Amino acid sequence: MRIRKKPWAKKELAENPYILRNSEQYALKFADYFNNDQPIHLELGCGKGHFIVATAKNNPQINHIAVEREPTVLAMAARLAKSEANTTAPLVFVELDAAKLCDYFNPHEVSRLYINFCDPWPRRKKWAKRRLTHANFLKIYETLQIPEIFFKTDNRILFEFSINQFSECGWIMRNISLDLHKSDYPDNIMTEYEEKFSPLGPIYRLEAYK
Amino acid sequence: MRIRKKPWAKKELAENPYILRNSEQYALKFADYFNNDQPIHLELGCGKGHFIVATAKNNPQINHIAVEREPTVLAMAARLAKSEANTTAPLVFVELDAAKLCDYFNPHEVSRLYINFCDPWPRRKKWAKRRLTHANFLKIYETLQIPEIFFKTDNRILFEFSINQFSECGWIMRNISLDLHKSDYPDNIMTEYEEKFSPLGPIYRLEAYK
Repeated sequence: MRIRKKPWAKKELAENPYILRNSEQYALKFADYFNNDQPIHLELGCGKGHFIVATAKNNPQINHIAVEREPTVLAMAARLAKSEANTTAPLVFVELDAAKLCDYFNPHEVSRLYINFCDPWPRRKKWAKRRLTHANFLKIYETLQIPEIFFKTDNRILFEFSINQFSECGWIMRNISLDLHKSDYPDNIMTEYEEKFSPLGPIYRLEAYK
Repeated sequence: MRIRKKPWAKKELAENPYILRNSEQYALKFADYFNNDQPIHLELGCGKGHFIVATAKNNPQINHIAVEREPTVLAMAARLAKSEANTTAPLVFVELDAAKLCDYFNPHEVSRLYINFCDPWPRRKKWAKRRLTHANFLKIYETLQIPEIFFKTDNRILFEFSINQFSECGWIMRNISLDLHKSDYPDNIMTEYEEKFSPLGPIYRLEAYK
């Protein structure tokens, strides 16, 4: 997610208690950071944070990590966490590129991955490999032995592409919705993007398991 | 597909040269019927026959078998074949229930299966097992070693269900379209049902491979 620079972002990035600074020190030992035995769920590309903040508040028995590579966006998400999060819910924001996940997490450490409305990289065919559901990324998640991925998007072409990729890479898909807001899936937490764009067309969602 | 009885159907069923009567004699030896070495493609539930007749005309190097369990519908499809088909295109209509496919075909005999707009069996959950993409049917196609299935429908819930079933049963899905008529798939031949209902919403399509 790209966004205009915010003048307050620098201070937020330096001081917000939900942001993990010098995250390298917790590379390959995130269990130390949380200092508990709870499972870790990770959102890849947390955007403005609506989804992960609400999800963390509803599920304090889970450690939530929100990963975002754009610092300004990360600052917005962490600011939301500060103003809204239940302080007892373990939630941390990390500036990180998805391609570097293996430098930060051990196999079996992350037990669920959320990918919500990631960049569909349209227009150029060669950009397809930047999509977070491209086989190259699925291999990273497989290396990390992440057993489940919850994915949603409003982009039809990205969703078609993603089903193909998950299928080709041997992930089993369950609970597919081709129009999430008309389905009977009970636990949907909307992202800020979803709130804005779902009136314009269907939201697609799937769960993929290894 | 159910339809009102046609007074001419009985005569058509008795005389139309595209209908295979006493089909039991070709059970487990359809190669004898065609008397050639061409691959066999089979449509399960051919409806009024628009799709299979056009497909057979365009691909005379393939033996086409159209299976339908409703005799009146079979008569309509075969009548269309008589009036439209290129007589050199090998095409035959067989009255048969999908559940009995294994009584008629040997493993490896059918090299492609078409399932177009099959009955979605909505309303009752226990009817799901009647859907032609239910795991029980997928097992039949697997027993027959059918390597590819081309499936389309306008029913969102059936398509969601089908992706789940194909995925769960280990079929690899490719070339998925969530809005076929907006996609760049070049070879679509519309069924009569598709012509009628595609203006009302998207047509879904996938290819599944073993």
